[in-house]
Amino acid sequence: QVRFAASLEYDGTDFYGWQSQSHARNVQDCVEKALSAVAACRVATVCAGRTDAGVHACGQVIHFDSGSARTPREWLFGANAHLPADVCLRWVRRTAGDFHARTDALRRHYRYVILNDATRSALLRTRSTRVHQPLDARLMHDAAQALAGEHDFSAYRSAGCRSKTPVRRVEFVRVHRGGRFVYIDICANAFLQHMVRNIAGVLIAIGRGERPAGWAAQVLAGRDRRAGGVTSPGTGLYLVAVEYGKRHSFPAAVAAPQF
Amino acid sequence: QVRFAASLEYDGTDFYGWQSQSHARNVQDCVEKALSAVAACRVATVCAGRTDAGVHACGQVIHFDSGSARTPREWLFGANAHLPADVCLRWVRRTAGDFHARTDALRRHYRYVILNDATRSALLRTRSTRVHQPLDARLMHDAAQALAGEHDFSAYRSAGCRSKTPVRRVEFVRVHRGGRFVYIDICANAFLQHMVRNIAGVLIAIGRGERPAGWAAQVLAGRDRRAGGVTSPGTGLYLVAVEYGKRHSFPAAVAAPQF
Repeated sequence: QVRFAASLEYDGTDFYGWQSQSHARNVQDCVEKALSAVAACRVATVCAGRTDAGVHACGQVIHFDSGSARTPREWLFGANAHLPADVCLRWVRRTAGDFHARTDALRRHYRYVILNDATRSALLRTRSTRVHQPLDARLMHDAAQALAGEHDFSAYRSAGCRSKTPVRRVEFVRVHRGGRFVYIDICANAFLQHMVRNIAGVLIAIGRGERPAGWAAQVLAGRDRRAGGVTSPGTGLYLVAVEYGKRHSFPAAVAAPQF
Repeated sequence: QVRFAASLEYDGTDFYGWQSQSHARNVQDCVEKALSAVAACRVATVCAGRTDAGVHACGQVIHFDSGSARTPREWLFGANAHLPADVCLRWVRRTAGDFHARTDALRRHYRYVILNDATRSALLRTRSTRVHQPLDARLMHDAAQALAGEHDFSAYRSAGCRSKTPVRRVEFVRVHRGGRFVYIDICANAFLQHMVRNIAGVLIAIGRGERPAGWAAQVLAGRDRRAGGVTSPGTGLYLVAVEYGKRHSFPAAVAAPQF
């Protein structure tokens, strides 16, 4: 058995998220089916971060084991030939036998893309979440700084989140405007279920002036999900990159989506 | 009867082009149906430039007449509520009664987006055309300069093109690389059928080193379509903007797609 790591890109629009489930189209089943076809033998995968329905990935990372003699290049082009058009592998590397895509991940990078416009967009309808009221990106950025650092994020996790601890370390949150778009970039050691979407919901309420800038900190301190904001749609969310220790020397991540 | 101009954005993926036709989904029928619903009366449209199957638009411009008392805002939000998700109006303006979307257009701007990568992209599969061999964007740019100016573009028009004259004035052609992408920006007074896609085909052949840089000029001078390159797919092509005289004072175009 040899262990491999791979980076994945997918358009989450027509997937009910990463996770394998019997009655809904998901990324994991597609990827395992393609890798199994290349291996001519059943291949199971472990991912760095499970994404929800509609959420995209530029740089999801997985690991898998196989006894089939395939080079990384054979895995890459073979799997891409078997995968549907809305998911593809970007690279495959042989790793140490104890590499683990989830537990070895040091940092995850997400980007949330908001189309801030009174009219909708045909080209970006599945690539962004639209907010029609004007957003104050500067205020959102300032408000978000209260989330940086190690905190109990209970107020920003979903009711169904099964993580043992609600404590996460947010390395940075940055909000900036680029034309009609507002981007929320957030990096943490790991994320709770719906954490980015719940943070986006709170920051959007602040950005449109419905809530004061201090509300993000107040929600955090309250540790009560019911006091938080709405969960923003998965449509605008991208898992941009996952960072590992330098010893793995994986290829550089692609740039985050920008419109 | 009052005349209106409107700007349209569409995702060309699931359309067989702009033009109304009985047995294939097209943008014109969708737009006329939506405007007719708003007017409660049949509305016909004229567009600035007919786009082919798969071709996108950020800033297609149309005009239409109606006797129904609707404000530009009512046309905009009303039509967008009736249009399918892959097409939308960006603005509507009342115009002079003799404004004509096609004949009054001074310049059309197109962008052709090439994903220049050995592996495919799930997120941009319908937003770009992929070329896996490395492209020399600088060489493509230099080669393309032979096309600037007024020329007989017979060698770059489709066999089925019904335009009376093959002469067009190319204001500029620019090719540049941005990361994994190569962008071809071309502006002309008007375009022949398949002209941008045929130019892209010739420039790609030059960029990958299959043909010398002088080939673009040589094909042009030959005036023979059969001596030209392949017609590149419509998938990477965007009608970015249409320019009119300043007296119309239409809203500024949105930025060309960039990845």
